[in-house]
Amino acid sequence: MAQQKNQMVRLAKIVVDPAQLEQYNIALKEQMTTAIRLEPGVLTYYAVADKAEPSHITILEIYADTAAYKAHIETSHFEKYKETVQHMVKSLELIDVNLIASATKPSR
Amino acid sequence: MAQQKNQMVRLAKIVVDPAQLEQYNIALKEQMTTAIRLEPGVLTYYAVADKAEPSHITILEIYADTAAYKAHIETSHFEKYKETVQHMVKSLELIDVNLIASATKPSR
Repeated sequence: MAQQKNQMVRLAKIVVDPAQLEQYNIALKEQMTTAIRLEPGVLTYYAVADKAEPSHITILEIYADTAAYKAHIETSHFEKYKETVQHMVKSLELIDVNLIASATKPSR
Repeated sequence: MAQQKNQMVRLAKIVVDPAQLEQYNIALKEQMTTAIRLEPGVLTYYAVADKAEPSHITILEIYADTAAYKAHIETSHFEKYKETVQHMVKSLELIDVNLIASATKPSR
């Protein structure tokens, strides 16, 4: 499908301290699954790590709209994530993007 | 969910000739939707364009395994795509990644 009207789509590029990568990934997964479960406006997350440099992480994020995103960053689970990872993240780049198209198997 | 055993996950970073961007996006969408529809081993595509530079495109690709990927690039729809875009693509970088986790709304 193409991007729905008002949706907010973003790539987050994160470099993590390699010594804390396992703990970072645990915190990231918990944040992602909690947000999808509890927040109607958090629609999609895919987090991937470069095979050659697993501390280099890219996250695709889709929110229903900017209001949903603003509500998201005020939630207790997101604040817990930010606090947990504050000394694990070496750099963070946020890139606003538009969804050209997505296609997935119906069962997924 | 986390990455399933044997899955092949990749980011493709593509820079397109801005003058041919509309035609490129049409060819990309057709390739993506055809592959998802016809090939059991092509599982997921998300294609996004930087808002600031729409000719800078990132595609998240998930295949069931490397055999599914190898079969994919031999299909007539993929060969048609490659032929169509050969003079539109200025650069192509393929980055092998691992899926740390994904989370999406059940209805999507």
